[in-house]
Amino acid sequence: MKLLSDAGRKAPKVFTGDEHAFEKMLRNEKLDAVIIATPWEWHVPMAVASMKSGTAYTAVEVSAANTIEECWDLVNVYEETGKQLMILENVCYRRDVMAILNMVRTGLFGELIHCRCGYEHDLRPVKFNDGTTYYYDKGDALKMGKDAYAEAQWRGLHAIRRNGDLYPTHGIGPVANYLDINRGNRFLSLSAMATKSRGLHKFILDNGGPDHPYANIDFNLGDIVTTMIKCANGETVIVTHDTNLPRPYSLGFRVEGTNGLWYNDGDMIYIENKSKVPDEWDDAEAWIQQYDHKFWREKGQEAEGGGHGGMDYIMLTDFFDAVKNNKPVPLNAYDAAAWSAISALSEMSVARGGSLVDFPDFTRGKWIKNKPFFALDEGFPMDSERMLIHTIF
Amino acid sequence: MKLLSDAGRKAPKVFTGDEHAFEKMLRNEKLDAVIIATPWEWHVPMAVASMKSGTAYTAVEVSAANTIEECWDLVNVYEETGKQLMILENVCYRRDVMAILNMVRTGLFGELIHCRCGYEHDLRPVKFNDGTTYYYDKGDALKMGKDAYAEAQWRGLHAIRRNGDLYPTHGIGPVANYLDINRGNRFLSLSAMATKSRGLHKFILDNGGPDHPYANIDFNLGDIVTTMIKCANGETVIVTHDTNLPRPYSLGFRVEGTNGLWYNDGDMIYIENKSKVPDEWDDAEAWIQQYDHKFWREKGQEAEGGGHGGMDYIMLTDFFDAVKNNKPVPLNAYDAAAWSAISALSEMSVARGGSLVDFPDFTRGKWIKNKPFFALDEGFPMDSERMLIHTIF
Repeated sequence: MKLLSDAGRKAPKVFTGDEHAFEKMLRNEKLDAVIIATPWEWHVPMAVASMKSGTAYTAVEVSAANTIEECWDLVNVYEETGKQLMILENVCYRRDVMAILNMVRTGLFGELIHCRCGYEHDLRPVKFNDGTTYYYDKGDALKMGKDAYAEAQWRGLHAIRRNGDLYPTHGIGPVANYLDINRGNRFLSLSAMATKSRGLHKFILDNGGPDHPYANIDFNLGDIVTTMIKCANGETVIVTHDTNLPRPYSLGFRVEGTNGLWYNDGDMIYIENKSKVPDEWDDAEAWIQQYDHKFWREKGQEAEGGGHGGMDYIMLTDFFDAVKNNKPVPLNAYDAAAWSAISALSEMSVARGGSLVDFPDFTRGKWIKNKPFFALDEGFPMDSERMLIHTIF
Repeated sequence: MKLLSDAGRKAPKVFTGDEHAFEKMLRNEKLDAVIIATPWEWHVPMAVASMKSGTAYTAVEVSAANTIEECWDLVNVYEETGKQLMILENVCYRRDVMAILNMVRTGLFGELIHCRCGYEHDLRPVKFNDGTTYYYDKGDALKMGKDAYAEAQWRGLHAIRRNGDLYPTHGIGPVANYLDINRGNRFLSLSAMATKSRGLHKFILDNGGPDHPYANIDFNLGDIVTTMIKCANGETVIVTHDTNLPRPYSLGFRVEGTNGLWYNDGDMIYIENKSKVPDEWDDAEAWIQQYDHKFWREKGQEAEGGGHGGMDYIMLTDFFDAVKNNKPVPLNAYDAAAWSAISALSEMSVARGGSLVDFPDFTRGKWIKNKPFFALDEGFPMDSERMLIHTIF
C-alpha cells in the first residue's frame, strides 16, 4: 500500500477477512488479470476460480500444483474456459538462463543430450523462524506452523508429510525451455530416490536443544531427492531437491550437447573448436554477455534493482505484454502442469524405492506439432536443424 | 624392458606368443604377485587363473569385471582359494580424494547423505586413432578395431554392443570408501537411464566424412548414462558416464553431509560454522592441504612424477606393502565385485528404461559387521559416531 501511495497511485481495493475472500473479489470485480502468490495449497483452487470467473489472464506462482489431479485441473479448466494461465517461473527470465537459451537455440551446444538442474537452497532458516521475521537467526526462538511468520507457517508441514521433489520448477522451467518440452518434445518417465532425513531434525536439536517440543517430529522429506527424467527425444534430465542441509545456494544447471556444455556451478562453458584451449573450461561470463537476450538488452537497466536480480521485472513485463496485447502467455497451463507434476510423480517413485513412473501427456498429443514460442529473440534465431521439422509439417 | 635395464635391473622373463601365454607363466613360475593390466575382457579370466594357480596376491586393473557372473567369479574364487585379490582403483589414492576421506572420517561433513561421481572424459580420441599413436589428432586416418593402436583396438566394440555405465570404478571407488560400502553399508539398488547416442557417430562424420566405412556403425552406448544408487544406510549416489562428447575431463565428485559438502568441479567446500562466510563456498585447496593423507605426507615427494599425478605410485606402494607384509589387500574382491557390478546392473536397468534393479550382496551378509580398513590415517581418526557401532558389536 505504502509503495503505491509513495508512487502517487491510488490505493487498491483489498479483499480480506477469511481464506475465501478472493471469491468475493472474483465475483464482484471485472479484472484484467489475476496474480496468485499464496501458499502452495491455494494455487490451484485460486487459479481455477479465477479462470472460471472469466478473468482473461491468470498468473500463478511456483510450484503451480501439488498433485497430478491438480495439474489436470489447471489444464482442463484452461481448455474449458479458454482463459489464459501463466506459471510465474521467474528463473526462466534470469539473465544467464536466457543467454543460455539463445546459445541453445542458435545451436552453439549442438544437439542437446543431457541437462541438470535443481533447487539446492538451505531453507532451514525459512522453514523455522521466531514468529516476527522471515529468516531464522541463531539464538532466535524456534517456531514453525501457526506461531511462525510467513512461509514457516506452512512450508514445514510439506516436509513433515511429503517425500519427493517439492519445488522442481526453478530448475526444470529453464531446462524445459532448452529442451522444447511441450513444443516438439515431452517428459516421458521418471525415477526418483530420496535420502534419509536428517537436516531438519538436526537443526531443531542444534538450535532448540533435545527438549524442544519439535525434537520428536518425524520428517518424511529426505534431505536430498534426486529425480531422473527421460524425454521423448532421447535426452535425460537430473533434477535435485536439496533444502535441509547447510550449503551455498545453487540451481545447479548443466546443459550438455554434441558440441559442448555449460556448468552453472563454477560458471564454466566449453565449446569444441571455439573455447580458448582444447579440453579446458572457459569462464562462462564472456559467453553469457555475448548471447545476452533481447529482453535484457532492451530492459536490463530498468530491471536492475527489481526482485531476484531483476528477473521478476522481466517476467512480469512479459506477462503484462501478453495481457495488454491479447497474446497467448509465454509459459502456459501445459507448462505449469508438466513441470509441477514432478512433485507428485517423484513422491510416487520415492514411495516405491525409485521405480519408474510415467508422465501424463497433459497436451493430449499436441506437443508433437507445437512450436517453441517462449521468449523468441530474432537476434539469435533457431538453428536450421531445430526448425526443419516445424517447417516440414 | 629399457626402463629396467636403464635402472640396472635384470631383464624380466617374458611370456608371449598367444593370448593364453599367461597360463604357461602361471604354471611354470612361483610368483609373489600378479598385476593384470589387459583389455577388460581378460581381467576375470586372468585373475581367476592367477588365484587358482596359487599366487598369493593378484591385482587387477579397472573395471574388474563386465558381467554379474564375472563379479561372482572373482568373489567365489577368492573365497575358495583364500588368495588375495586387489582392484587397482588408482583414484582411491588421488591426493584430494584421500584428503576428503580424512575429512569424511573425522566427521567434518557430518553424517554423509549424498554423493556424486563419474567418469566424464572425452574418450573419442582414444576410441579411434590412426593405428600408430594412442591419441587421435585432427587429420589422422580414422581407425578402430584390428587396424587401430592400443585401446582403440577393443574399447569401441563395447560402445557398439553395450549400453550402460561401462567404466564406473574411478568414480564409485572413492565414494564407496567415503560411504563404508562393504564395511557397515552396501549398495542396495539402482536405476539407470541412457541418453540417445550421437557423439561417436558425429565424430566419424566430422573426421572421416559421410562416406567413411564407419559412418553406418550403430552405437548402442548412450552418450551419457546416469545411474542412481540407494545405499543400505539411506544415502544416495549419482554416477555419470560421459565419454562420447567434447568436454573437459572430470570425475565430478560431490560429497554432502549434515555439516557441509565438497564439489570437485569448481574445487569448492562449504562447512557450516567453519567456512569463512556463511552460505558461501571456500576454495577447497586449503582444506585439502590441511587434511592431507598420511600416504601423501610420507610419500608425496617420491610419488611426484609418477603415473596419473603420483596416485599410481601411492597405490602400488600400498599393494606392495600388503604383499611384503602378508596383509589383506586394502581394496579387495568384494570391492572389485560391488563396484564393477554397476556396469552390468546399469545395462539391465537401461534396457528396461530405467527400472530398478537390485545389487547382489557379494559379501553374503559380512558387510553388516565388517569394519573400515582402507588407508587408515591415525592423524585423522574415525569420529566416535562412526566407530560406535563397531565397538558395540
